Amino acid sequence: MPVKTLNVNEDILSANDMLAENLKARFDNSRVFVMNLMSSPGAGKTSLILRIIEALSGKVKIVVIEGDIASDVDAQKVGRTKVDVVQINTKGACHLDANMILSATQSLGLDGKQLLIIENVGNLVCPAEFKLGEDVKVMILSIPEGHDKPLKYPLMFTESNALVLNKIDLLPYTDFDMQELSKTVLAMNPSVKIFPVSAKTGEGIAELAAWLSGQIAGK
Amino acid sequence: MPVKTLNVNEDILSANDMLAENLKARFDNSRVFVMNLMSSPGAGKTSLILRIIEALSGKVKIVVIEGDIASDVDAQKVGRTKVDVVQINTKGACHLDANMILSATQSLGLDGKQLLIIENVGNLVCPAEFKLGEDVKVMILSIPEGHDKPLKYPLMFTESNALVLNKIDLLPYTDFDMQELSKTVLAMNPSVKIFPVSAKTGEGIAELAAWLSGQIAGK
Repeated sequence: MPVKTLNVNEDILSANDMLAENLKARFDNSRVFVMNLMSSPGAGKTSLILRIIEALSGKVKIVVIEGDIASDVDAQKVGRTKVDVVQINTKGACHLDANMILSATQSLGLDGKQLLIIENVGNLVCPAEFKLGEDVKVMILSIPEGHDKPLKYPLMFTESNALVLNKIDLLPYTDFDMQELSKTVLAMNPSVKIFPVSAKTGEGIAELAAWLSGQIAGK
Repeated sequence: MPVKTLNVNEDILSANDMLAENLKARFDNSRVFVMNLMSSPGAGKTSLILRIIEALSGKVKIVVIEGDIASDVDAQKVGRTKVDVVQINTKGACHLDANMILSATQSLGLDGKQLLIIENVGNLVCPAEFKLGEDVKVMILSIPEGHDKPLKYPLMFTESNALVLNKIDLLPYTDFDMQELSKTVLAMNPSVKIFPVSAKTGEGIAELAAWLSGQIAGK
């Protein structure tokens, strides 16, 4: 049947790409490794960030940017650690863009930092299209969301360097098929690293932190 | 700190509003009750639709529009019932709009139908801004997403006529606070109806179906 589509304006995207390249050059200059963390609402981005901070504490100097449409509950949670954090409220926009990151990093200061974690707005669609000058895109799929999500939100699964499967503590209570998920994702994105974790129990966090440390060291 | 925002173009929204009003008049004329169903990816929209079809089977003539960025897995699931279904693929757009619904209803035909269920793209942000000519907006929040979501995605919680809390079978394995959630949501939207359900076990579906039947009968 005939389907009309609204596409995101290509001019907006290419302007963002230019600014993101510029931002990437700055991050490279300061030797700050940047991770753009994306997922659906409630998949566990903030909980995972807290686990990463805990795992890398004392080894890596971390700074965090929290993106939300409204509220600062996530920044407050991260602010209880010793890590510097800035909250961006997009006031309706469904993703972060390079311009927002530029403002945030100017206010944060990156001197001596080694890892910048950007928590994007909870959304599996638009954040995949907007580069933020990051070194890696990491996405979280949480077990209760189901293993059919790669078919329905293909861009994010294709663009991500690592896929964190969070809430594996809930595996016994769902019909999530881990093998089916891996097969689908690897067919779309053969080089993606998959990390099954539970931010709640801590299971699998060490493997993810080791991968991330290797990435930071390699920059 | 200074935050730059990208706002959805107001012209696009007002053009959509006009078309949605027109669509609403057609639905009213045909006496079709329209429900716009929204949630995060994986909150259980399709499973809930299957439960509603089951509960209202033989009583209400139902037709379904499935919205996804890509794939037709949801339409295939609904197609296994006796209900007519059309899949819209938005090819990247993060929400449905009135124009897409117009095309879909022309291809479906609404003669003699009483309930049109529109499953929006899985996203807590943009779908809340685009009217589709619906009588009610119903949103699903699933238990594993957490009770802090109303603060972070306020528009959808404010705009919805009913809030379905799905996956209550997972309540024992999460720290979801039902009272806290209700308090927050009712402060934002005092008239919202809240239905705790499990599309998996069927718990709570009868209450939701009864409310929906009442709405349809009242049209």
